[in-house]
Amino acid sequence: MPQAAPYKIALCQLPVTADKHGNIARARARIDAAAAAGAKLVVLPEIWNCPYAMETMRSYAEDIDGGRSPSVSMLSEVAAARKITIVGGSVPEMASGQLFNTCCVVGPDGEIKAKHRKLHLFGIDIPGDITFRESDTFTPGQEPTVVDTDVGRIGIGICHDIRFPELAMLYRSRGAHLICYPSAFNMSTGQLLWDLMQKSRAVDNQLFVATCSPARDPNSQSDFVAWGNSSLIGPFGEVLAAAGHEDATVIGEIDLSLIEAVRANLPLETQGRGDLYRLVDVERE
Amino acid sequence: MPQAAPYKIALCQLPVTADKHGNIARARARIDAAAAAGAKLVVLPEIWNCPYAMETMRSYAEDIDGGRSPSVSMLSEVAAARKITIVGGSVPEMASGQLFNTCCVVGPDGEIKAKHRKLHLFGIDIPGDITFRESDTFTPGQEPTVVDTDVGRIGIGICHDIRFPELAMLYRSRGAHLICYPSAFNMSTGQLLWDLMQKSRAVDNQLFVATCSPARDPNSQSDFVAWGNSSLIGPFGEVLAAAGHEDATVIGEIDLSLIEAVRANLPLETQGRGDLYRLVDVERE
Repeated sequence: MPQAAPYKIALCQLPVTADKHGNIARARARIDAAAAAGAKLVVLPEIWNCPYAMETMRSYAEDIDGGRSPSVSMLSEVAAARKITIVGGSVPEMASGQLFNTCCVVGPDGEIKAKHRKLHLFGIDIPGDITFRESDTFTPGQEPTVVDTDVGRIGIGICHDIRFPELAMLYRSRGAHLICYPSAFNMSTGQLLWDLMQKSRAVDNQLFVATCSPARDPNSQSDFVAWGNSSLIGPFGEVLAAAGHEDATVIGEIDLSLIEAVRANLPLETQGRGDLYRLVDVERE
Repeated sequence: MPQAAPYKIALCQLPVTADKHGNIARARARIDAAAAAGAKLVVLPEIWNCPYAMETMRSYAEDIDGGRSPSVSMLSEVAAARKITIVGGSVPEMASGQLFNTCCVVGPDGEIKAKHRKLHLFGIDIPGDITFRESDTFTPGQEPTVVDTDVGRIGIGICHDIRFPELAMLYRSRGAHLICYPSAFNMSTGQLLWDLMQKSRAVDNQLFVATCSPARDPNSQSDFVAWGNSSLIGPFGEVLAAAGHEDATVIGEIDLSLIEAVRANLPLETQGRGDLYRLVDVERE
């Protein structure tokens, strides 16, 4: 566990429009302002450079591995200029003809430190009401993502990834201090699950959880309306910072020594029953 | 999944005193009244026949296996008389010189169908504030408990058992429709965690969760003051019934077809990534 000083994290709850260049310019300005306010780590929402609409997703996709990604290039430039770490929300990524929902983590040198492709694609089927499958559009990623940064070891999940407790448990077992979940919950799953999921992942694993949503557009003509409520949760489930639903950047403080304190006070790890159950991290088996 | 009709479950949020005979008589009366109100399943709190106080626990212990347990005998009598199933909260059990925190599940024939000994003993250490270890008094149980009853397959956990997501996941994988957690959260863990834990276990596993606490005694002279708020939670995290903190019996309805509906709408099981993580149920490995 690093003994680093407490640091500021910014959650940029960005409004998102159909104008990609406008989205990128706005994100750059918000990251810049967050860095100016002292943030060492900045988190963006899921799919922040274009609307969360499956029918247009492919037209916004970028080739990150090929270096033809204006969205990620912007993240690299501002991270290097400001000497900060960015968990770059997610953007649609095209690779080998497949579309991924992809989060790049960029370091203070401007380099991509990790790339997380959403592992669990959202799908819901309520006959006569709503049927929706991200898997009709996206290909799922193939590996969990934990990355060592200047501000600690961070696990990455995107939206529906938060619904699976095993992923958070795996990140904890790999030593993550913080799990960042760029997300775009809609109004119904937001109301039911947003608060519950972020707090339970933090409390069960005794670490920090940060979520970042797009801002809600109450005048949206689309089927998708974002829940908002980007939050930073501490290792005992405490809300350390939280946005409402509007366009906003919230800044919270992460003091990693809290993790040690909580785990010393209530040692869930040693109280667990490894003789009765055990989570297998398949890649590390 | 059984296609049984919806049924009523009663959570008896009992006041608990130092008078064991009084506690047993009161519990019998409440169970009887719940059955008269139509409950097919009745749940009692953790340690309902004596105060939750480590220093006196041993003096209240009963020999369940030896048939010298007035608390469990009462449960058998009333279950048989009323033709109901009882998840009998927990009582201190003495066996082979060891003390366990034990829940008996009694069927409509009055027989003990399962006995769960608390697996995860609560311990907290906040130097200068509170240091408390159940393990100084109790011996932990050695196996998870899933029991087939007239009202479906039920997993049993006692209080701190709820803090471990793996146990609930294991119960789901063994086919439980409902997890009952007789519990005695105190005021601080209650405020922070009660609501969060019961809902997240239900939502993550898409099943019903019932919790049952002792009633709060606001005039308690002891260190332990119960949180109350016994609840029935549905498979989408919805609160189906909930007590306040006072002496009360709350009755809710369990419709097992809701589980099928939720799992069909949002198939978390098939969306999970068994290629990346896997929970091992050690006994069944």
